[in-house]
Amino acid sequence: MVIAVDAAGGDHYPRSPVQGAIEAVNELPDLKIILVGPEDVVNDELSNHEYDSKRILVQHAPQVIGMDESPAQAVKTKQKSSIVTGIGMHKAGKCDAFVSAGNTGALLAASTFLLGKLEGVSRPVIAAIYPTIKGVRLVMDVGANLEVRPEMFTQFAQMGTIYAREIMGVEDPKVGLLNVGEEEEKGTDNLKAAFKELSKLSNFAGNIEGRDIFDAKADVFLCDGLVGNILLKFGESIPVALEKFVKRGIQQLELGPEEAKLIGKVLKVSLEEFNPDRVGGVPFLGVDGVSMVGHGSSTPKAVKNMILNTAKCLKHNINDKIVASLN
Amino acid sequence: MVIAVDAAGGDHYPRSPVQGAIEAVNELPDLKIILVGPEDVVNDELSNHEYDSKRILVQHAPQVIGMDESPAQAVKTKQKSSIVTGIGMHKAGKCDAFVSAGNTGALLAASTFLLGKLEGVSRPVIAAIYPTIKGVRLVMDVGANLEVRPEMFTQFAQMGTIYAREIMGVEDPKVGLLNVGEEEEKGTDNLKAAFKELSKLSNFAGNIEGRDIFDAKADVFLCDGLVGNILLKFGESIPVALEKFVKRGIQQLELGPEEAKLIGKVLKVSLEEFNPDRVGGVPFLGVDGVSMVGHGSSTPKAVKNMILNTAKCLKHNINDKIVASLN
Repeated sequence: MVIAVDAAGGDHYPRSPVQGAIEAVNELPDLKIILVGPEDVVNDELSNHEYDSKRILVQHAPQVIGMDESPAQAVKTKQKSSIVTGIGMHKAGKCDAFVSAGNTGALLAASTFLLGKLEGVSRPVIAAIYPTIKGVRLVMDVGANLEVRPEMFTQFAQMGTIYAREIMGVEDPKVGLLNVGEEEEKGTDNLKAAFKELSKLSNFAGNIEGRDIFDAKADVFLCDGLVGNILLKFGESIPVALEKFVKRGIQQLELGPEEAKLIGKVLKVSLEEFNPDRVGGVPFLGVDGVSMVGHGSSTPKAVKNMILNTAKCLKHNINDKIVASLN
Repeated sequence: MVIAVDAAGGDHYPRSPVQGAIEAVNELPDLKIILVGPEDVVNDELSNHEYDSKRILVQHAPQVIGMDESPAQAVKTKQKSSIVTGIGMHKAGKCDAFVSAGNTGALLAASTFLLGKLEGVSRPVIAAIYPTIKGVRLVMDVGANLEVRPEMFTQFAQMGTIYAREIMGVEDPKVGLLNVGEEEEKGTDNLKAAFKELSKLSNFAGNIEGRDIFDAKADVFLCDGLVGNILLKFGESIPVALEKFVKRGIQQLELGPEEAKLIGKVLKVSLEEFNPDRVGGVPFLGVDGVSMVGHGSSTPKAVKNMILNTAKCLKHNINDKIVASLN
């Protein structure tokens, strides 16, 4: 199994992708990694580490797409960037997947344009993981499609169900539609039509309200990319915000340093589900390939887990299962 | 000042509205309350309390609108309900405001149909309060308008600015548009057009991402009612969910009962901003009257604070200020 890794993406390149790749290779004996990025930068970072040079290769890609560059423009003009090069290698069969913690929009654009869509897929979708009291679950879409038509929701549901079951180990995943109320007649005309469409699926759990996300009333939460993106980023902000709220509470109660330390420790352990490093990346489902999106702030551990997660997608042939489910 | 209170609304009527009304009257010398609901039920509850019968009156309204009834239908068929009666009294000038913790949809429908809109207002809006690290701020709309056109956003911004400044005491409130990215060109065509419209306002802070809510990067967060409703209910669920996450953390760390108790205390104090009782209600802005919406689970304290908040709206003539701002 060969996974190409964007070595010039994210806030902490080259260290995070290089170190993450080495750690992943050490965990998976059948894994080979191609680090894609400016040769000198990548090799320089590699020289700080011990690694198996037969299983960690480098593909030169001199251009770097910045985190804030316009995606479509960047993909068009930076043909020698790590993202375009990596996805191009994937398309050409030189690797089985591409993972990147770089510019998400550019990764989506390159994946869509170069890899194309899986048979029967109307629109690819980003399925983000979300913390719940039962473990992480899926929220989709989180930004690839700001407006989602009813039949797109159904496809998202089918793809998300497969991912939740095969990769996340959720037995019998339930799909819910995020809405302003539980009743069938709630929401916009589009959501009402989506409810009807989704009702054809055997695992549709109906409309879900915002208050029912943390309790995982569903396993796959469907929404348009606007709702999902706001919800995802809001959710990511909870641990840091909470730290601030609690710090103030500690001051108000005039607690000592020992007590403050204990509380900090409890919070850290309790909010482990919120730690984006654990899964490390989320899939761009529906493209004809395996394209994994990491958080810009990915640590080496996050990149390692993103690679391992990608390997799992490959082992479970999730694209074949998606095609079988849709067609 | 006369405020009519729905004595047959919410999960805890008649106790919450009756007790809340008595407490509010005790705090505000110039306040008179009319409790609207089934006479026998209200008087029965009143008999449990000491109160000034010259300042707490009862208006008989035999019908009760259930929390799950279809709003439009209920308002149409239950003309003798507490909500229709109370709003009718407000329209007839028999009271200066109406507050209810009952069926929100029915309150909105009755307010819109019976009170009508303020001069120049295109669509009334629910402005919900939201916890941030700087104190509560506004998210609007949270459900009255599932789809919001650009010029409606501008009016929401103007109304929210006045409410934040006059009632919430936020000096120089900034307005932000919830979106998937900060750049002007982000989002749907509707949001892009809204950005342009909003840019005409001097206090527009631009697009705001989900991660910037808790830090109060703006004071008035604009969104359509779908986004707002999901975000509001999700936010409300945070304290209870957190309790569950932390309980698990405590078990995992095998802490003793004393330590668990301390942590519970810290959380309670820290998350005081999330306590809906504190403000007790949110206004339905843009109608030609003062109509305050309480949470279904309102406690007596919540109803008291909702009444005091309503009194503040009356003292600050916020509707006059809204009309002046829009026209």
